[in-house]
Amino acid sequence: MNFISIQNIDSLDKWVKQALKIKKNPLKNKKLGKNKTLGMLFFNSSLRTRLSTQKAAMNLGMDVIVMNFNSEGWTLEFQDGAVMNQGSSEHIKEAAAVVSQYCDIIAIRAFAGLVDKEKDNAETVISGFLKYASVPVVNMESATGHPMQSLADAITMAEHKTKHRAKVVLTWAPHPRALPQAVPNSFVEMMQKQEDMDFVITHPEGYELNPEITKDSVIEYDQNKAFENADFIYAKNWSNYNDYGKITNTDPNWTVTAEKMALTNNAKFMHCLPVRRNVIVADEVIDSENSVVIEQANNRTYSAQLVLQKILKNGKK
Amino acid sequence: MNFISIQNIDSLDKWVKQALKIKKNPLKNKKLGKNKTLGMLFFNSSLRTRLSTQKAAMNLGMDVIVMNFNSEGWTLEFQDGAVMNQGSSEHIKEAAAVVSQYCDIIAIRAFAGLVDKEKDNAETVISGFLKYASVPVVNMESATGHPMQSLADAITMAEHKTKHRAKVVLTWAPHPRALPQAVPNSFVEMMQKQEDMDFVITHPEGYELNPEITKDSVIEYDQNKAFENADFIYAKNWSNYNDYGKITNTDPNWTVTAEKMALTNNAKFMHCLPVRRNVIVADEVIDSENSVVIEQANNRTYSAQLVLQKILKNGKK
Amino acid sequence: MNFISIQNIDSLDKWVKQALKIKKNPLKNKKLGKNKTLGMLFFNSSLRTRLSTQKAAMNLGMDVIVMNFNSEGWTLEFQDGAVMNQGSSEHIKEAAAVVSQYCDIIAIRAFAGLVDKEKDNAETVISGFLKYASVPVVNMESATGHPMQSLADAITMAEHKTKHRAKVVLTWAPHPRALPQAVPNSFVEMMQKQEDMDFVITHPEGYELNPEITKDSVIEYDQNKAFENADFIYAKNWSNYNDYGKITNTDPNWTVTAEKMALTNNAKFMHCLPVRRNVIVADEVIDSENSVVIEQANNRTYSAQLVLQKILKNGKK
Repeated sequence: MNFISIQNIDSLDKWVKQALKIKKNPLKNKKLGKNKTLGMLFFNSSLRTRLSTQKAAMNLGMDVIVMNFNSEGWTLEFQDGAVMNQGSSEHIKEAAAVVSQYCDIIAIRAFAGLVDKEKDNAETVISGFLKYASVPVVNMESATGHPMQSLADAITMAEHKTKHRAKVVLTWAPHPRALPQAVPNSFVEMMQKQEDMDFVITHPEGYELNPEITKDSVIEYDQNKAFENADFIYAKNWSNYNDYGKITNTDPNWTVTAEKMALTNNAKFMHCLPVRRNVIVADEVIDSENSVVIEQANNRTYSAQLVLQKILKNGKK
Repeated sequence: MNFISIQNIDSLDKWVKQALKIKKNPLKNKKLGKNKTLGMLFFNSSLRTRLSTQKAAMNLGMDVIVMNFNSEGWTLEFQDGAVMNQGSSEHIKEAAAVVSQYCDIIAIRAFAGLVDKEKDNAETVISGFLKYASVPVVNMESATGHPMQSLADAITMAEHKTKHRAKVVLTWAPHPRALPQAVPNSFVEMMQKQEDMDFVITHPEGYELNPEITKDSVIEYDQNKAFENADFIYAKNWSNYNDYGKITNTDPNWTVTAEKMALTNNAKFMHCLPVRRNVIVADEVIDSENSVVIEQANNRTYSAQLVLQKILKNGKK
Repeated sequence: MNFISIQNIDSLDKWVKQALKIKKNPLKNKKLGKNKTLGMLFFNSSLRTRLSTQKAAMNLGMDVIVMNFNSEGWTLEFQDGAVMNQGSSEHIKEAAAVVSQYCDIIAIRAFAGLVDKEKDNAETVISGFLKYASVPVVNMESATGHPMQSLADAITMAEHKTKHRAKVVLTWAPHPRALPQAVPNSFVEMMQKQEDMDFVITHPEGYELNPEITKDSVIEYDQNKAFENADFIYAKNWSNYNDYGKITNTDPNWTVTAEKMALTNNAKFMHCLPVRRNVIVADEVIDSENSVVIEQANNRTYSAQLVLQKILKNGKK
């Protein structure tokens, strides 16, 4: 099995329960990964993903090889039939096949370029590996999705939800640099699999995410209204999807403040990190008792470990 | 023992048989490397070498430390007696001695600069480590040789050769960037140790490799003629050795095509990778059933593992 | 416990004895670090520290995660209350808390910037981790100290001292680039804990180290006079502390030569490495039998292993 998207999760409820079980006893399956190698290929920066996925693999007794592909390897070509007389040194066809022979699982991080929407939606890098690798492939954040993050978010919400039907709000917030839609995309997809939660997306008009992902998810342009009675506020910036990759709004009124949190039902504050303090969220909120951002990061280990564990047990690509 | 050159192989036939034995049961010597550390020092990019050598070491139960020397360490000085008031921060004399105290084996990748032929032939980096290290040194591609690659090539040919006396052709092919002669050098040296194979080198006139390496190997300037009845076609670009490090020929007629492969005895196509598709070789050839490039890369693990295993068993420098 | 400064050493004599015990049998505590992870975060280059600390951790059976923070991670913000709409992507508050969840010990290298004395003295990076990490923090050279180096130096001196009261001289030497005061600072602090040694610092006038560190240590501006009857000469360049981070002297007369060593009591020559040959020290001295620089580097493993071992046994932050 591969883990590329939230759609690879057959039962979110079941997966979350399994992850929480792993969290209680993370070393239980220390022998499962013996003599198995996880290859982690980074095309972009990483802190949490890099460390938590390594930790998860080590908890399973796996060997880990980490590689920064751009600086340590060769520039890859993804176009079939390309005459490679320009910058690219190696075709994904060889690279993926070759790495598959040294690693039992290949995990990849390759962000959106935010220049060419079609190319980003085609998921050039991860799709290339998926097509040409002979071993399972894991998404450590691709151009359009970050499913291990959203699985960790689901775990965190499961730990904090109370008995009533929870209201979850994904709110856009301003940011000085253009960011991908990967995290909100996967969060939306994950929320669509939540059976006992209400979900609202709030963002400035024009900042709609890919409608093929949001589908019939509720969108509320009035952030204050969206926050009313919320149990979880999930803040995240993304750049404009329609005016692709552009920053068309930097309105500081969208920053999550204590005043706005006061509109909620004592909501937990969530963010995938790294977060720009006092731009995305005010110190007073992220430093409050209701902030669970550090716990989310902690759950990245168990999210990754569940995915690796399932792949190790399942075996084949 | 060190492994610096094909000349360190006492019996190629024996080594290939040992490597094939390792391939059948790669974890058999998992305890041999226990509490031993392989230090892998990279002065240049690497994909196959980086991953396969790590894999080999892990198969032997070794600990591995990987270091990108240029970006993570200090700029080295190799000149004896240098007054180090310029760019270099550390002399190889200290660096090699120091690393020897943390690692049981030091593996090094340091490409040719292709500017100064004498300096490249002097193998400044690997010779420096060889001179000042107190532990065995392994060549992961130096200025003039890539013996672990050629050993993997020998393994691959052993797996594919049929009963008759095989004809092996090393063919130059065009490339947009100036490449070192390390791979063809070691391939030539390895072929000179093959007792039951015929060997022909083909390249444009003027692209002769170092005659001290090719010695009396047959050179045929007519690529078509060279290909006739070949059982293995090994394609590789190298920059001009006489007009040192220059690209003096980019003739696309040297690209390995299906038409040319048709001249052979249903030859296997080989390349060390990374390969420029449709420059070195046409898609139709590298994607054909006769292409064994992925298998060559796989055998890099067993080539490296044999070398490490021999060193671990041998012990001393 | 943390290991941030020489001041964290309760009894230098005891620590040195313990380190020498580890050196005799480095794998004795191989089970102590089982299932424990050391996270090594580098903000600067490293050779000895990188390799010896990994080796030390592996000797203790720990898992190791190495990360080059600047190139592989996110730019950190250290200012409390910052409105993060500029270059920094993540606040130390989150980064340190998050890393603490994946690692049992965090080791950090973050050099002085040598531009802003106050900022360097505030130890922004390591103090930030110390403040916000929930696990023990180890200093792998910070802006103002390099205690694991000085501990290794103390181990080396203990191995080489003879029965009489030894005289130790820390001598400044010229260098083409501006270097931090971290190594001499920690060396001075370590020497202040030596009960049976005499200690003299010698440097050009104006090159005084931070007086809060040197306290009443003897300073002798005449290098020749300082060298008289010395048993250990510890050479090191540092940039001007008063005219902060500037090079105000490059006098080659301060280079340690054989002629100067002849003034000593057959002194051992020491340097933390990397060293500029024939700038800091003449070849004739560093290549002599009295040079113990390679042994110092070797003792870095046992210095680090002692620190990690103490932390693993002590447990809590």
